Amino acid sequence: MQDEKQKALVVLSGGQDSTTCLYWAIDRYGLAAVDTVTFDYGQRHHIELDCAAKVAEFAGVSNTCLPIDTLAALGGDSLTDPEIGVSSEMDADTGLPNTFVPGRNLIFLTYAAAFAYRLGIRNLVTGVAQTDYSGYPDCREETIVALQETLRLGMECDVTIHTPLMHLSKKETVELARDLGGLPAMAYTHTCYNGERPPCGQCPACELRAKGFAEAGIADPLVTSA
Amino acid sequence: MQDEKQKALVVLSGGQDSTTCLYWAIDRYGLAAVDTVTFDYGQRHHIELDCAAKVAEFAGVSNTCLPIDTLAALGGDSLTDPEIGVSSEMDADTGLPNTFVPGRNLIFLTYAAAFAYRLGIRNLVTGVAQTDYSGYPDCREETIVALQETLRLGMECDVTIHTPLMHLSKKETVELARDLGGLPAMAYTHTCYNGERPPCGQCPACELRAKGFAEAGIADPLVTSA
Repeated sequence: MQDEKQKALVVLSGGQDSTTCLYWAIDRYGLAAVDTVTFDYGQRHHIELDCAAKVAEFAGVSNTCLPIDTLAALGGDSLTDPEIGVSSEMDADTGLPNTFVPGRNLIFLTYAAAFAYRLGIRNLVTGVAQTDYSGYPDCREETIVALQETLRLGMECDVTIHTPLMHLSKKETVELARDLGGLPAMAYTHTCYNGERPPCGQCPACELRAKGFAEAGIADPLVTSA
Repeated sequence: MQDEKQKALVVLSGGQDSTTCLYWAIDRYGLAAVDTVTFDYGQRHHIELDCAAKVAEFAGVSNTCLPIDTLAALGGDSLTDPEIGVSSEMDADTGLPNTFVPGRNLIFLTYAAAFAYRLGIRNLVTGVAQTDYSGYPDCREETIVALQETLRLGMECDVTIHTPLMHLSKKETVELARDLGGLPAMAYTHTCYNGERPPCGQCPACELRAKGFAEAGIADPLVTSA
């Protein structure tokens, strides 16, 4: 059995960033040493889960989908509540986008750590990034560092959270995906906030993705294949 | 509206410790400033949820039950998996009781913090304790301190996790409940690992509870009322 320190679990959302992380993990640990986990938390668009499964299949790694019913029960965010419209507007009270679920990434990573614990895996890989994101405090490096310490203490294991995209711009993330051979898989990813395929091209998520590919001078396989 | 720093959310399991914490919070913040949250995570005995609701009703505070389906999906522990027997034996690999769910308290407290965030509450109260417990690394003070820092960074709010029982023995916890007027509520609590009511008196949880009451020289209202 491979040393558990040499195996990795990638939190795969089915989007561009986590797919890039998957190829980063495959490059670092080898295809046979990488697993992926996806969370079904009642997101607005089920297509994200389908994309995660397709990306994993295309890459040749396993994908486990874990249910999370608690976030929807907590309510009050536009990603899980169909009564709240999607908007790029900031909430006047919190200064955060109205797609924000307090501590959502803390939950995802804690579950990923528990799952990895069961599998004997000690490396977690997540696509959170400080750059190009505004206002998600659970994506910042200092939060991830604090969470890693909490997980190490709370699970008594030497888990490491890898964040290869933390300080990359969208342009640099596209270039990283290219360098790791991850571009073809981008055709199976999902980014559009409106759940459209081909993507709407109008929402903030589509615009941010398009900007990254444009600045890198690379055609987006998702758009060109559509 | 009351200052959010003067409101508290108690994580109420329906057991002796969290009920003591409820009375600690009522004593400190006042009855009107205290809410409780209980997690339905697929525990072996539904009676725990009923007890939490009864304790809250008896005390005169609200109780919200949030579902958590993820822990059962992660599987492999005797609290949620009926195929695994309950035992006080330690797992030979981990040195932990086989009732251990990796990071379970991290999950509970992160959800409690997210719920408190929605309610505008900044004080969380939990009955975790280092004393009388062996091997649950997510109950230790250093883990709770690290988690508090993680939640503050990840949710950008000044949440405080109060652990009034952290360094108390079971005897001292019983005495604290008495001093706070919390003894009558103990008749509605649940402790027995075997889910029996009246309690079996034989399982490790029943034995630990009985020892605490005996050492404090106080009759357990749960046993005397049975």
